[in-house]
Amino acid sequence: MHNFLDISDCPDPQAWVAEAIALKRSPHRYSTLGENLALGLFFMNPSLRTRLSTQRAAHFLGMQTIDMDMVSGWPLEFLDGTIMDQHKSEHIREAAAVVSRYCDIIGIRCFPGLEDRDLDYSEPFLTAFRKYSSSPVINLESATRHPLQAFADIMTIEEYKRTVKPRIVLTWAPHPKSLPQSVPNSFISWAAQMNYDLVVTHPEGYELDPKITGSISIEYDQNTAMKDADFVYAKNWSSYMEYGKILKKDSDWMITGQKMKITDNAKFMHCLPVRRNVVVADEVLDSPDSVVLTQSENRIYTAQVVLIHIIDSIRE
Amino acid sequence: MHNFLDISDCPDPQAWVAEAIALKRSPHRYSTLGENLALGLFFMNPSLRTRLSTQRAAHFLGMQTIDMDMVSGWPLEFLDGTIMDQHKSEHIREAAAVVSRYCDIIGIRCFPGLEDRDLDYSEPFLTAFRKYSSSPVINLESATRHPLQAFADIMTIEEYKRTVKPRIVLTWAPHPKSLPQSVPNSFISWAAQMNYDLVVTHPEGYELDPKITGSISIEYDQNTAMKDADFVYAKNWSSYMEYGKILKKDSDWMITGQKMKITDNAKFMHCLPVRRNVVVADEVLDSPDSVVLTQSENRIYTAQVVLIHIIDSIRE
Amino acid sequence: MHNFLDISDCPDPQAWVAEAIALKRSPHRYSTLGENLALGLFFMNPSLRTRLSTQRAAHFLGMQTIDMDMVSGWPLEFLDGTIMDQHKSEHIREAAAVVSRYCDIIGIRCFPGLEDRDLDYSEPFLTAFRKYSSSPVINLESATRHPLQAFADIMTIEEYKRTVKPRIVLTWAPHPKSLPQSVPNSFISWAAQMNYDLVVTHPEGYELDPKITGSISIEYDQNTAMKDADFVYAKNWSSYMEYGKILKKDSDWMITGQKMKITDNAKFMHCLPVRRNVVVADEVLDSPDSVVLTQSENRIYTAQVVLIHIIDSIRE
Repeated sequence: MHNFLDISDCPDPQAWVAEAIALKRSPHRYSTLGENLALGLFFMNPSLRTRLSTQRAAHFLGMQTIDMDMVSGWPLEFLDGTIMDQHKSEHIREAAAVVSRYCDIIGIRCFPGLEDRDLDYSEPFLTAFRKYSSSPVINLESATRHPLQAFADIMTIEEYKRTVKPRIVLTWAPHPKSLPQSVPNSFISWAAQMNYDLVVTHPEGYELDPKITGSISIEYDQNTAMKDADFVYAKNWSSYMEYGKILKKDSDWMITGQKMKITDNAKFMHCLPVRRNVVVADEVLDSPDSVVLTQSENRIYTAQVVLIHIIDSIRE
Repeated sequence: MHNFLDISDCPDPQAWVAEAIALKRSPHRYSTLGENLALGLFFMNPSLRTRLSTQRAAHFLGMQTIDMDMVSGWPLEFLDGTIMDQHKSEHIREAAAVVSRYCDIIGIRCFPGLEDRDLDYSEPFLTAFRKYSSSPVINLESATRHPLQAFADIMTIEEYKRTVKPRIVLTWAPHPKSLPQSVPNSFISWAAQMNYDLVVTHPEGYELDPKITGSISIEYDQNTAMKDADFVYAKNWSSYMEYGKILKKDSDWMITGQKMKITDNAKFMHCLPVRRNVVVADEVLDSPDSVVLTQSENRIYTAQVVLIHIIDSIRE
Repeated sequence: MHNFLDISDCPDPQAWVAEAIALKRSPHRYSTLGENLALGLFFMNPSLRTRLSTQRAAHFLGMQTIDMDMVSGWPLEFLDGTIMDQHKSEHIREAAAVVSRYCDIIGIRCFPGLEDRDLDYSEPFLTAFRKYSSSPVINLESATRHPLQAFADIMTIEEYKRTVKPRIVLTWAPHPKSLPQSVPNSFISWAAQMNYDLVVTHPEGYELDPKITGSISIEYDQNTAMKDADFVYAKNWSSYMEYGKILKKDSDWMITGQKMKITDNAKFMHCLPVRRNVVVADEVLDSPDSVVLTQSENRIYTAQVVLIHIIDSIRE
């Protein structure tokens, strides 16, 4: 049985990307593969793209989907041994076990609290859910990872790249709210497994978890980083060092048409939703070089590939 | 590609009504027409009848449906060029474009604010959504139009009419809350295209948009209007002239058994939900001449006809 | 046409349990039985197990399901003759009638207020809904009954029993909140129709409706009741006599490993969600004798049997 919690659950990232590109040409090819199987989607936080793309992917495979909106509350107890006489009405042990009796595959979304770094990076919800679930679990964006997004991002690069080893710039960009690090974390992890010239650029203080960035090149000057770039992926994240904090709000790191001129006619990427004229200027987002809608659309085919591999592991 | 935003999007209203009546006899006739297609339903406001009937219609055509409840908030930016550093997290440009990458047909509901008439009648949400969507859009009740309801209403009249040119009375009725004008607007627009003797009756001050009523007969005396009526369609709306205001609350415009006696054994119509003994007396709603449940049921077959025509335009 | 509001709607409880056990071995056996039929699920209160298991059951039968979350409000008027000028926007007469034009089978959940016993035990919502619905109605847990849970509970006993006439103990257990009596009511009603040595044990003041317990043995000493038990079903309920009240909160009625030793290696049962170390100690719930997950899983097959019988009655 396979889970898909992080890209480490993908045995061959390059092969999966190739499968997704092939599937895009004929998404109905496996229209009965998932027959009689149910995919349960549990959202502890709001979702538009993930909700739509994953349901669509499951439908293309003939699966039933059950969309459970838990945003208004699913007060689960995580501690073992607790006397549950307060506000938590169910323990994660029963919750995950029961749900996996009803659903053959389970997708869960649970964002971080962004207050306690060790807690968030221990992935308490995802880890406990997988532990007590008897069905495979898919990460629909957890506290610190968003592997389905990363998969679609890399697929998009593979579709648009013009050189064998493209230069990819992941750049921090401003945002008024404190956002998780899950998208950059997963993007870096997957991109590191591809044949890319990858550089991460951000203001000082926005260094990501060194266990994730590893030996990836870090550049504090955005203009220097963007030189000769084939792809510019803009994304905000809150500080990992001063955990969850916003250290900088001014607009000098926003991606503008002027900055894109430094690149080698780079494609512009963002995972959406995006704040116009904060993260990126209209002129860039509305230009033919923006591939953000393709990134979103590719969420369907990449989710399909993940489901196909999990279904294969169930059927074995 | 066809949209269905208003009845002007229907090239032949009489033919569509005939198709809906035929489909009612065998609703499963086209059970594979929509195979592999997904209908996304986006509700910015609550829905019971529209939600159920449209999902049922899609299912009869073999389509997948994805029901998105956005009532608790989907804070979209509509203005171009804005610096999005406040509460709106996504621009309608991306929202509509992304959603249409996932859904082959999109239904949207968005009620009016009833404060700014020019704004509401410009249909900002519907217009922007259609502009940026690459998939056909269906109006599930917008600020000033409800064409799916009008279609089902006209179908009901065609099923029950006993004369070639029936007399149809659309009458204003009291209601404690300020309601949109979308139902009367769309009903009048569609009825005007049929062979009806149509009269609209309401208290002074409740005149609808003159661009919609056009040359339709207006009668300020309800009793005079109801004389010889074959169908009495009761519906409240707030004032168009003093926009969104309630000018009158007393019960003298309520439809009673006494008033129905003025008619030629008329059928009673309402789009539901209806407030009993405010809009209409129990004795009328519970009489065999009430066709309100048929109006509701016909929402299925009329939605099917709309979907069939849109699917045909996609497959072309 | 069959409804399934209470176990009195099941003509042969023993036969239905046997059907559910057989179906568990091949749940896809009737995968086209429900083709073209829609099951509407209306939840006035939250649901996890019922929502998932009933949708899964319907899917195994090839039905469409429409999940309607009405928790945030569906303000229905129940009184006849009311002038509806206040907060209720629709009468149950229209609501139930309309919904049954869209859905071939309707499931509804509506919990009790636990303030007015006569009102709750008159089952106002369920009764009115059935009265005005033209489609069969399934009780997804009403004010005082939960027959789908009871069905799954009895099926579980039949799977695990080691003797012809097992000893079943239904024991009250503590809980911090005031809970309905629907689960014990329906369990007792169904168990009374089986070949069981059934005893109900609870503190004084927690006597259930005598019309339901009838001649069932009541034992006020939990230890005495549990002697030689084959199955111990723990469940909290609020007082029927002092209606809706919590009379006792201390932990001496909690099911512990020590108490389970009094039994004849009994299986432990609970309908979930369960509060650990309040209702039951971890050591019992985590032991191999706990069958709570099987009870939950069996909700699928028992719901399928109910749907199959209702579909048969529709097709006749």
